[in-house]
Amino acid sequence: MYSRHAPVQVADEGTWATGPEEIVMPDFNSLYSQNALNMKKSIIRELLKLTNKPGLISFAGGLPAPETFPVEDLRVAADAVFTKNPEVGLQYGTTEGDPALKAELVKIEASDGVKVGPDNILVTSASQQALDILPKVFLDPGDWIIAGHPTYLGTIQAIQSYQGKILGVPFAAEEDGFDLGEMERRYAAHRAAGMSIKYIYVIPDFQNPTGICWSLEKRQALLRFAYRENLLIIEDSPYREIRFVGKHIPSIYQLDQEMENRGIVVGLKTFSKILIPGARMGWIIAHPELIAKFVVAKQAMDLCTNVFTQRWIAEFLATGKLRSVIENTRANYRAKRMFMLEQLQKHMPTHPDIHWTKPEGGLFLWLSLPKSINTDEMFTKAIAKNVAYVVGSAFYFDDVEHNSMRLNFSFSSKADIEEGIKRLAEVVRGELAAHPQE
Amino acid sequence: MYSRHAPVQVADEGTWATGPEEIVMPDFNSLYSQNALNMKKSIIRELLKLTNKPGLISFAGGLPAPETFPVEDLRVAADAVFTKNPEVGLQYGTTEGDPALKAELVKIEASDGVKVGPDNILVTSASQQALDILPKVFLDPGDWIIAGHPTYLGTIQAIQSYQGKILGVPFAAEEDGFDLGEMERRYAAHRAAGMSIKYIYVIPDFQNPTGICWSLEKRQALLRFAYRENLLIIEDSPYREIRFVGKHIPSIYQLDQEMENRGIVVGLKTFSKILIPGARMGWIIAHPELIAKFVVAKQAMDLCTNVFTQRWIAEFLATGKLRSVIENTRANYRAKRMFMLEQLQKHMPTHPDIHWTKPEGGLFLWLSLPKSINTDEMFTKAIAKNVAYVVGSAFYFDDVEHNSMRLNFSFSSKADIEEGIKRLAEVVRGELAAHPQE
Repeated sequence: MYSRHAPVQVADEGTWATGPEEIVMPDFNSLYSQNALNMKKSIIRELLKLTNKPGLISFAGGLPAPETFPVEDLRVAADAVFTKNPEVGLQYGTTEGDPALKAELVKIEASDGVKVGPDNILVTSASQQALDILPKVFLDPGDWIIAGHPTYLGTIQAIQSYQGKILGVPFAAEEDGFDLGEMERRYAAHRAAGMSIKYIYVIPDFQNPTGICWSLEKRQALLRFAYRENLLIIEDSPYREIRFVGKHIPSIYQLDQEMENRGIVVGLKTFSKILIPGARMGWIIAHPELIAKFVVAKQAMDLCTNVFTQRWIAEFLATGKLRSVIENTRANYRAKRMFMLEQLQKHMPTHPDIHWTKPEGGLFLWLSLPKSINTDEMFTKAIAKNVAYVVGSAFYFDDVEHNSMRLNFSFSSKADIEEGIKRLAEVVRGELAAHPQE
Repeated sequence: MYSRHAPVQVADEGTWATGPEEIVMPDFNSLYSQNALNMKKSIIRELLKLTNKPGLISFAGGLPAPETFPVEDLRVAADAVFTKNPEVGLQYGTTEGDPALKAELVKIEASDGVKVGPDNILVTSASQQALDILPKVFLDPGDWIIAGHPTYLGTIQAIQSYQGKILGVPFAAEEDGFDLGEMERRYAAHRAAGMSIKYIYVIPDFQNPTGICWSLEKRQALLRFAYRENLLIIEDSPYREIRFVGKHIPSIYQLDQEMENRGIVVGLKTFSKILIPGARMGWIIAHPELIAKFVVAKQAMDLCTNVFTQRWIAEFLATGKLRSVIENTRANYRAKRMFMLEQLQKHMPTHPDIHWTKPEGGLFLWLSLPKSINTDEMFTKAIAKNVAYVVGSAFYFDDVEHNSMRLNFSFSSKADIEEGIKRLAEVVRGELAAHPQE
């Protein structure tokens, strides 16, 4: 239903008059694309609106802790853009990205064991833009990708906006990556049914939403599968540097370079979780032929990423202080993660079907409840008790499961984590009583 | 043909070794979408590579004059983001846009006679992102839009990347907008053939590439046509404020508010040409129902526009100094435009089929040559004479014309304009001699 959104200006009189009374109804619906008709507002977004409530403790967002932002160092770096060639920093730039920034990114990759040059890099307006470029370049309507079941919501939205489909693969009970046997079976069945499958999307380091980290063996096995089936692997690594416990595992990009070096891995990186998200600054690493395709796609999307910010971040990186920001962030989140695990242990009811992941890094953990409890329905009860989470159902493309939730531990204070988990445990206890398992 | 792009790191030894010798060829082509296979590198981009030549005078780019950038005021505004709530300016923001920036945009619109509220506005990563959102929301593969013949290259690229098509409409001989009779005929023929046509894309103020400005009467007539046919009008206005001569004409957005107020006009705005392009900052004004759809589309594209930059630009706008930047820019380009017209008059050969537009504003003019001259072929000769332009053919979706060029007058100095036009006239004279008209 349409209603006038603004009074009409009567230009000659220079005053505002109310428009005529009859209601005009533009038929926008007849103009929308299939994409637009399919678009659903993010469930997270809609639920988050409910969390703007005084006194509510939210584990729902994915915000980094602002106390980790190196404000003064960033301030000095930003100012340098105005004193060193501002006519470059304020002007249009190339689609590929600022050369000074790319030079710093090459060094960051080298420090992670990945050998790339500037031609392997495309600067993006953070990782979500990369997630939008990929289906534009690889998916025709009805094409498939392989991804976790569950997987990152922003990926589901991007794939849906190109009318792509997701073949979901469950995680192994060992929590060391996909159930690869199940992946092979589902893949074979889809191929046999004539489906066109283009790439495998994984977040091997502390997946969003589960927090699961892939083992070395599973990374290698996934790579061999991709070699055999001529599939690309999209390795999304926003949290890779935020490891609390366990030992460093090479990225799949590095493993490809060490194994057959086929250049079939596309790495997605961002400063959102290791520096600041407000700069919207990320990068793709890939084979130069793929980078060239991504450049053409990106050109029609935004011409180039914010030039000022590219040079600002390059100035900051040149100080060498990123490492200490990451160390600081890691210590901060490690303490909060340990504390949230302790509080869950202390307050959650003991039940064979209540368990949660113990992430070795990242920002999130995944809490599973008995099948008899629906976390979508439980959400309003949690809000009533002043605690919020993200419903697990938001992270499934299909075969949606409803008995889980994502909890963020990076943003809240320890005091809020303690109180929030107490409240959540109380809500779960109420649900257990109300919905005894059959 | 694939060749290894990087040596393999042998992680255990910490040294770099060269990979095995056999060449592996990933079959990327089998993975690309129809979109990606259709993507052509921008002709402008490819040609611009040739213009990185010492001594060459280029009228090819679309760069604003850097001397118009208010560097010191922008510096102070950026610093304020670090002193006022940096934890907000460096954090994630909403997809809709920063409230402080939107409040300033409401005022900018009001000063142009357009009455909108925050719900009518979506902040975008400059106008190219808006041009990418539109086909995502409105076009299914094979759907059509109406646009100028010629029209802005970035629009052609965005439409093509969604497999959309463009019904081109020539401009009237009066250079006051489309040939509306011709538009009606072509539209009727396409509709009769069952084509689905979704919106009309126009740049009414100093069009890119022609510099043409639409008259009030044609703006009103276009609106009546859109009302009758249930089409949206996309009004792209990057240059609207840069008027040199002639009187102010209301935007089509304003005219809709004054006529039937149906909310069918979508306005695209950007700071790229009136402040700085390096901030990649623009906005869409539209009916709130459309804004809500655009928000969902944008969410899957980049979550939100650079938050730091939104607050930075809001700080600058709050100083009230944008108006003097625009005045300064207008005076600068007015002088250069007058000078380029003088130089063309002075140096170009007199010929019944050599003429150029006399834009009342903007950054570009359009030079037409006799049909016997192909400006694509002439381009390398111009480069040899150290002068560059954009081939007119780049601005056509189909029925490509090859006897024109776009000349930019905002970036070059007067001395370069004089020398460059002399060189260009010499090249044209050579072509006239080599290709006498049949």
